[in-house]
Amino acid sequence: MKVRFLLAAIAATVALPAAAQYAKPEDAVKFRQAAYTIMGNQMGRINAQLKSGKPDLAAISAAANTLTAVDHLPWDAFGAGTDMVNSSRAKPELWQQQPKFKQMSEDLVHAADKLAAAAKSGDVKAIQAAFGETGKTCKTCHDQFRRD
Amino acid sequence: MKVRFLLAAIAATVALPAAAQYAKPEDAVKFRQAAYTIMGNQMGRINAQLKSGKPDLAAISAAANTLTAVDHLPWDAFGAGTDMVNSSRAKPELWQQQPKFKQMSEDLVHAADKLAAAAKSGDVKAIQAAFGETGKTCKTCHDQFRRD
Repeated sequence: MKVRFLLAAIAATVALPAAAQYAKPEDAVKFRQAAYTIMGNQMGRINAQLKSGKPDLAAISAAANTLTAVDHLPWDAFGAGTDMVNSSRAKPELWQQQPKFKQMSEDLVHAADKLAAAAKSGDVKAIQAAFGETGKTCKTCHDQFRRD
Repeated sequence: MKVRFLLAAIAATVALPAAAQYAKPEDAVKFRQAAYTIMGNQMGRINAQLKSGKPDLAAISAAANTLTAVDHLPWDAFGAGTDMVNSSRAKPELWQQQPKFKQMSEDLVHAADKLAAAAKSGDVKAIQAAFGETGKTCKTCHDQFRRD
């Protein structure tokens, strides 16, 4: 219980934004997981196109744009108390190393912006490179802060 | 089982798009529910702003834009087999009355577009009206096609 209150106190006083958008911590967890579900699906769509040998550039661009519309949403859903929700796979380290987590969140946003720009340009090689970079930001953060 | 195969046959041959984006029906249900979670949350944020007496127009606009980025996503996740997933709250009528469901989905998209335009204009009365119309499209479809 001590750890619980410590984490809540850190979240409440240091960095993570207030969670007025969520009636309870479970809602915040459901929301951030929903955003990640959308993101993972869009990455899957882009991957499938790139692997198809005949990528549908409009489909890639649509998926990349959806990604950029959603990628910034989870951040404010990691507020106080959301570390204790059972359905969450976030490790305690996420709250203990908030600047690192925020940096990783921003890395994702920047990589996805580049992916959307590459998709708009229609340059498949640039899309492949930007897709790889974006996927790397997902994996880096998952490896660090998400339980298996 | 007969109903199951009938619905699957309808979905496969008549209207709903192929679900190549989803490895299995459960993934499609998870995806569409994630999109609705994002949408419901954005509507909640706008509602809270409108009820605050001092609405933050930038916050309303951001939420409305997120809504428009996500509102069209669920449609292709109602494909064959997704009517049989336990976690789904969609009624069988949704697959029996697909043109009606598609129309309702489009009504939402149009209403959300108007809400985003009103938010951009900064006219709070117009935002309130467009928010009410958008909420009506949610409720109409839920009443018709979603189990309690």
